[in-house]
Amino acid sequence: MVRRPWKILMLTMLAPAMAFASQGGEHGDPVASVVLALTIILAAAKLGGEVAVRLGQSAVLGELLVGVLLGNLKLLGFASLDHLWTDPAIDMLARLGVLVLLFEVGLESTVGQMLKVGLPSLLVASLGVITPFALGWGVGAWLLPGHSVYVHAFLGATLCATSVGITARVLKDLGRLQTQEARIILGATVLDDVMGLVVLAVVTGMIGAADRGASFSLASVTLIVVKAAAFLGLALALGVRLSPKLFHLASRLHARGVLLALGLAICFFFSWVANLVGLAPIVGAFAAGLVLEDVHYREFVDRGEHPLEDLIQPIVGFLTPIFFVLMGLRTDLGAFAEPGVIGLAGALIVAAILGKQACSLGAWGRGVDRLTIGLGMIPRGEVGLIFANIGVGLTLGGAPVIDRGTFSAVVVMVIVTTLITPMALKFSLDRAARRTLPRGS
Amino acid sequence: MVRRPWKILMLTMLAPAMAFASQGGEHGDPVASVVLALTIILAAAKLGGEVAVRLGQSAVLGELLVGVLLGNLKLLGFASLDHLWTDPAIDMLARLGVLVLLFEVGLESTVGQMLKVGLPSLLVASLGVITPFALGWGVGAWLLPGHSVYVHAFLGATLCATSVGITARVLKDLGRLQTQEARIILGATVLDDVMGLVVLAVVTGMIGAADRGASFSLASVTLIVVKAAAFLGLALALGVRLSPKLFHLASRLHARGVLLALGLAICFFFSWVANLVGLAPIVGAFAAGLVLEDVHYREFVDRGEHPLEDLIQPIVGFLTPIFFVLMGLRTDLGAFAEPGVIGLAGALIVAAILGKQACSLGAWGRGVDRLTIGLGMIPRGEVGLIFANIGVGLTLGGAPVIDRGTFSAVVVMVIVTTLITPMALKFSLDRAARRTLPRGS
Repeated sequence: MVRRPWKILMLTMLAPAMAFASQGGEHGDPVASVVLALTIILAAAKLGGEVAVRLGQSAVLGELLVGVLLGNLKLLGFASLDHLWTDPAIDMLARLGVLVLLFEVGLESTVGQMLKVGLPSLLVASLGVITPFALGWGVGAWLLPGHSVYVHAFLGATLCATSVGITARVLKDLGRLQTQEARIILGATVLDDVMGLVVLAVVTGMIGAADRGASFSLASVTLIVVKAAAFLGLALALGVRLSPKLFHLASRLHARGVLLALGLAICFFFSWVANLVGLAPIVGAFAAGLVLEDVHYREFVDRGEHPLEDLIQPIVGFLTPIFFVLMGLRTDLGAFAEPGVIGLAGALIVAAILGKQACSLGAWGRGVDRLTIGLGMIPRGEVGLIFANIGVGLTLGGAPVIDRGTFSAVVVMVIVTTLITPMALKFSLDRAARRTLPRGS
Repeated sequence: MVRRPWKILMLTMLAPAMAFASQGGEHGDPVASVVLALTIILAAAKLGGEVAVRLGQSAVLGELLVGVLLGNLKLLGFASLDHLWTDPAIDMLARLGVLVLLFEVGLESTVGQMLKVGLPSLLVASLGVITPFALGWGVGAWLLPGHSVYVHAFLGATLCATSVGITARVLKDLGRLQTQEARIILGATVLDDVMGLVVLAVVTGMIGAADRGASFSLASVTLIVVKAAAFLGLALALGVRLSPKLFHLASRLHARGVLLALGLAICFFFSWVANLVGLAPIVGAFAAGLVLEDVHYREFVDRGEHPLEDLIQPIVGFLTPIFFVLMGLRTDLGAFAEPGVIGLAGALIVAAILGKQACSLGAWGRGVDRLTIGLGMIPRGEVGLIFANIGVGLTLGGAPVIDRGTFSAVVVMVIVTTLITPMALKFSLDRAARRTLPRGS
């Protein structure tokens, strides 16, 4: 009885074949191909996530790998599905998914927390952004000598940000979330996200200027840094002051769903303003999340509504798997036939791992295990992918800054850094525990 | 202190002007114009909904009217915003919004309930579908003599379905949800939805066949009816048996968000199959909702997850206002300058109101207030709009079945029937209460 449902799942996965059969049909509703793609993506994402979770990995990794699998079916002779993934509506849903994801990540922190992380976290974060950026740039200059200096810089930017989710999960599973190392890592990743976004803003701005024919100058870089800092500063300062009042006002409204609509509207509005001043929309979505705090919408929760985090979660759960599966779909395993791509992926992996080991230099204090901190900062996860995807959309002299081969190398770097972190962290924590425990215990 | 936040709201609404200013810019991310449109739509929807709720109307009505307002700013000389609403991504989000809305409506009923509504509800539903369909067809034949018989039939179809939300809300507000009238009305509207969808399927199928050059024949109508019945019968029969097993299986998965992903995948898959067999995707989404029942995912709720209704609600809350505002946006008030359109709107309103009064003939029983039942079935709400919007997308000999003027007339019919129901119902319930209460009490 229990075994039979697998047949249903298999039937669901047969949908592609049926889609192929119906391609010649005259069924006009444009939503049809989108819902078919969404059915396959959601089912595949959960199956992939499940396999990853059972193997002790994070679900994101499974979603990414199942996308790689679906996207490279053509290597096995199934080319019929490609039209499903290239629908612009799927791409747009994935982009909205990234915005709500960064908004959710921002909601988990507050501006106050960010300003209070302390010197060790600040040092760890700074070293963990500067070193991988320099190493990534170096890898680009070494292995892609034919490309512009902006491409090298962009490659550096994709190595900056840390994906805290995986590390936090491992620390939680091992019961080490309250240790000093955990506090330093979690504090650093908040700053890390902000710094990574500023690096991205600067590099993106420089590429945009170069593409319009402006030459590299200290003045233009300064302008971009000032713009990014002014946006973040203003958004955070104004947001922190105005959002409690806005929510207090909104709490007097009688219509249903005001809290969610207001939260989403703020997220989308900040994203749009970020784009307006030349920054990536995700910077705005993240800032919007940082600005909003639980206390602002306590009045809604007091009258029985779910808190904003709970309301956002289903939307994130619906939209973000689309992004991760799509990133996997865009990974061209065929590109690895060119030997340069394998070399690039390998060098990026080494740069990504070594670059974050510089973090250990920033941490001190009695009993702080520096190796754990360096290893905990390794995973790039979603943020590296988001950056690489932005690079695919940027053009320089008509060509995309991140071409298909480079994109695939970045995805492999993300997969590998995400895969090795749980094992490496567990090893390092066990080692530290053996050292600190008295002998014989 | 409290008055100032209005300024923030006003600033948010100033976004359009800023968008206009930035139109010439080279900010490349395609998500930017979409998030700007979403910001305005969500803010406008909630403000419109709030005004409607404060005036004792339903929020949907406010969302629709605020859309009409935004869409007709060009009559006041503001044409600069139109590019925001014509983005295909916004249209696709609205279409997905309708699917999740119908899915949510379906979730509120079960197949078992539908089969148990009883003879009065069945009679009320049947009369409430047949009479408005015939009257709507008649209005079309009378006022649009130059159009094809299929256009007349489609106009009839837009008058079939009842929007139970408004009636249920009024009955609840007046504490009459447990009366015999309420039970008959609520039972009837479930069947009503199904019958309306079958009428839509038949008319849409006939138009599709006619557009491909096939002539009207009893055989083709029979084929469509058989297809629609076979789809609904098979989907419901198979779904009811398989979904508990599928959910039981899924409850063994460890990854987060499985319940929501599975629910959405079923909704989207049913929508796609409906389209495949030539039915509207909403028929599939509704059937998917009917099939799924609370008990199927009890295992998820038992382990602390939110029930599917709670998880779907934020997605409905995000996507469906986009649909209603967009419907308003597409209402061309300029079309009412042609006298034919006003006449058509007026005749449709009369047909819509009179058509549902036939329902009162189907209700009997001691003390049942027939007028209340007829009045309670009047509002067309979302379903009428969804049908009209499908008509805009259908073509017959190259021209849309529902042109801009006819669409605007249907929207006005929906607005008026939705507006008068609360007042009419309150009058009728007060009258019935005075009659049944002993004199002097």
